[in-house]
Amino acid sequence: MDASGLTVPEGYAPKNETSLPGYLAGLPAVAARLGGGESDWQVREVGDGNLNLVFIVEGPAGGVAVKQALPYVRLIGESWPLPLSRAHFEHMALTTEAKHAPGLVPEVLHYDETLALIVMELLQPHIIMRQGMIKAIRYPRFVEAITDFMARTLFFTSDLAQPAAEKKAAVAAFCGNSALCKITEDLIFTEPYMIAENNRWTSPQLDGIARAFREDAALKVAISRLKVKFLSDTQALIHGDLHTGSVMVTQEDTRVIDPEFAFYGPMGFDIGAIIANLLINYFSQDGHATPEDPREDYQAWVLETVEGVWTGFREKFLALWRQGVQSGGAGGDAYPAPLFADGASAEALEAERAAYLDRLFADSLGFAAAKMTRRILGLAHNIDLEWIEDPDLRAACETRCLTLARDMMVNTATYTKIEDVTAAARAMRGSAPA
Amino acid sequence: MDASGLTVPEGYAPKNETSLPGYLAGLPAVAARLGGGESDWQVREVGDGNLNLVFIVEGPAGGVAVKQALPYVRLIGESWPLPLSRAHFEHMALTTEAKHAPGLVPEVLHYDETLALIVMELLQPHIIMRQGMIKAIRYPRFVEAITDFMARTLFFTSDLAQPAAEKKAAVAAFCGNSALCKITEDLIFTEPYMIAENNRWTSPQLDGIARAFREDAALKVAISRLKVKFLSDTQALIHGDLHTGSVMVTQEDTRVIDPEFAFYGPMGFDIGAIIANLLINYFSQDGHATPEDPREDYQAWVLETVEGVWTGFREKFLALWRQGVQSGGAGGDAYPAPLFADGASAEALEAERAAYLDRLFADSLGFAAAKMTRRILGLAHNIDLEWIEDPDLRAACETRCLTLARDMMVNTATYTKIEDVTAAARAMRGSAPA
Repeated sequence: MDASGLTVPEGYAPKNETSLPGYLAGLPAVAARLGGGESDWQVREVGDGNLNLVFIVEGPAGGVAVKQALPYVRLIGESWPLPLSRAHFEHMALTTEAKHAPGLVPEVLHYDETLALIVMELLQPHIIMRQGMIKAIRYPRFVEAITDFMARTLFFTSDLAQPAAEKKAAVAAFCGNSALCKITEDLIFTEPYMIAENNRWTSPQLDGIARAFREDAALKVAISRLKVKFLSDTQALIHGDLHTGSVMVTQEDTRVIDPEFAFYGPMGFDIGAIIANLLINYFSQDGHATPEDPREDYQAWVLETVEGVWTGFREKFLALWRQGVQSGGAGGDAYPAPLFADGASAEALEAERAAYLDRLFADSLGFAAAKMTRRILGLAHNIDLEWIEDPDLRAACETRCLTLARDMMVNTATYTKIEDVTAAARAMRGSAPA
Repeated sequence: MDASGLTVPEGYAPKNETSLPGYLAGLPAVAARLGGGESDWQVREVGDGNLNLVFIVEGPAGGVAVKQALPYVRLIGESWPLPLSRAHFEHMALTTEAKHAPGLVPEVLHYDETLALIVMELLQPHIIMRQGMIKAIRYPRFVEAITDFMARTLFFTSDLAQPAAEKKAAVAAFCGNSALCKITEDLIFTEPYMIAENNRWTSPQLDGIARAFREDAALKVAISRLKVKFLSDTQALIHGDLHTGSVMVTQEDTRVIDPEFAFYGPMGFDIGAIIANLLINYFSQDGHATPEDPREDYQAWVLETVEGVWTGFREKFLALWRQGVQSGGAGGDAYPAPLFADGASAEALEAERAAYLDRLFADSLGFAAAKMTRRILGLAHNIDLEWIEDPDLRAACETRCLTLARDMMVNTATYTKIEDVTAAARAMRGSAPA
């Protein structure tokens, strides 16, 4: 324990701009990448996330990013302790993701368990995708990359590909990440639907819809069913926080960062997170558009992207599954190949694959709706919406987003294809008060 | 490793009638329960199960049962290695079950991790329930006890009652039992539906139906969906092998033994195991009935028991859930109490509880069907059927059981209440060739 009563291991201390270079100088591979000597290195603390310290270190030859966990939630302070072990889980997840989706996560250069610190390649000139989207920048390679990332990380850690004993060991290895899961359980699946100190929203404009959500019995049953799935379904290793703030992009390259919420959970939680954050951006554009900078075309691109994400994911996931069976089984214990060798059974399996993806689609829409709601009524908000200065305008965008979310969560079965979602989003803007 | 290449820890050796008394003499509590000295103790090896050594030790003052794991499957021999750690998981499960369902499992007197050995109270004059049922003995207290056992062990280890972090730790603690899970995955969810060396059935009488099962694409999709649930849903700590051979009974007392297959899995697997084994016995009675010993009345009792098991379980599970919420939450993170405090939400939650139990009912019927099938077409058979000497008569009973199982698994949704199952079982006997 340190003075504040937070538990930290012997040898742990938060790094700062002064102490970091000396530490990095002791890591030959890192020092070589930076070039020169430690006095030549520029260090900036840039953590704009909610939880951790993040440093960018640049030397004559190149740069690195350093992420270090604090024993509490940075956004809140020492009153909200959070275990350093999240760095351990982030490192494990990064390693697994790099294996299954090479080139789509930052390269890890060094991991220090005691310091809860990860040194990674510096992604340059990447920016956080959400920042780019607020400026209406298109990312033509995003759909291809994110569908690769999701299809590959989710498929290869599911029972379709991972042998049961190996998967159970991996499930166990991530069970210790329960403090991070608890944040999700509380902030996404619970608090937005009740009176809770953490909640905030555009007030008084959204007071009515916030109350309506808290009093909506069907909605509270729906969110609770999703929570049960989050609590107990170990479908695959999920990123656990896959919003557009966890994606770094250029026009050429896409990287998924920050998997500290990773654990074995429902796949739809990741897919839903991407869809939700795209839809939030879509609705937010009405708050950023000006006569000189209209956003209609960009909004059309965002909805195309939503469609591309689901369609691309679905096709790639199915292709991996089919490939696995063709090669005599992908190694997983689910849907064992010998049962589906004859023609009629192979056909039935192909229909079941489609049904499996339909169930996953429904899960994804429910989780997407949960994410859209928490970003407007809960603790953590999106700058897509927060940066709309006029509160009436912001509230109008938020109301459309919440109205769609409510319908997606309660009437999930009426959305049978992704085009139903994008059509509903379009209709929501057409019919909502401007 | 010992000479055969099986891995055992330093200090492990199988006990026998000669070496056991000296070992027990070193355990004061056990020695006191037996009374006298070790030379006064009678030891019998009675293991009639498939996996382990089981000794009954009796002394002047009382008796104990000793169960020791072997590093292989006893039924098969050293060619099928199986980790000793199953004793560790059995002990953990017994401890958890004793906490939640006191008086319904044998008391553990001593556990030796190195020897993979558990000393338990001797259940006397209990017999294995399956043996009693073959003789048409009724157990008037069984429904009350087994519904208590299932409702309490499953509810209190589910997300309805166990806080998420504690549950994740428990999930992790049981993930290591993957070798035992693998037996279930292979022998119940896979092999009966394909050509496999382990399979056997009453031949040639069942050759046709065995082939029909192997060629039944809808059935293979259905069993595979159940397998996915078994592989990935950590709904609660399940016994994992809850057939009538794992229940010891008298007219007064009921105890559940042998939870070495325990892990966090789908609740319906336990409930289905009980229902399946009752239905197997029901169909088997036509092979045991004689003019002097008709079994119609007993069969009626068996079906009443099937109905009582589901109805009793459902009511008790619901009562625990309602109680939890009334007392401000049972401690679990699912369906958080603050979301359902107002009248309309409380009503919606009550409807959702019914829907939750409906989903669990469907799961249970699917798993029951899987168990009925594997006991006729797979490796391990039930003496209920095996003891019918006339193969034609046995095959007729087995065919009815398989026909019902196939319908329960593929057309699960047509069974909306337990009386639909018992009616179908009755109809199966009425219409099947005698």
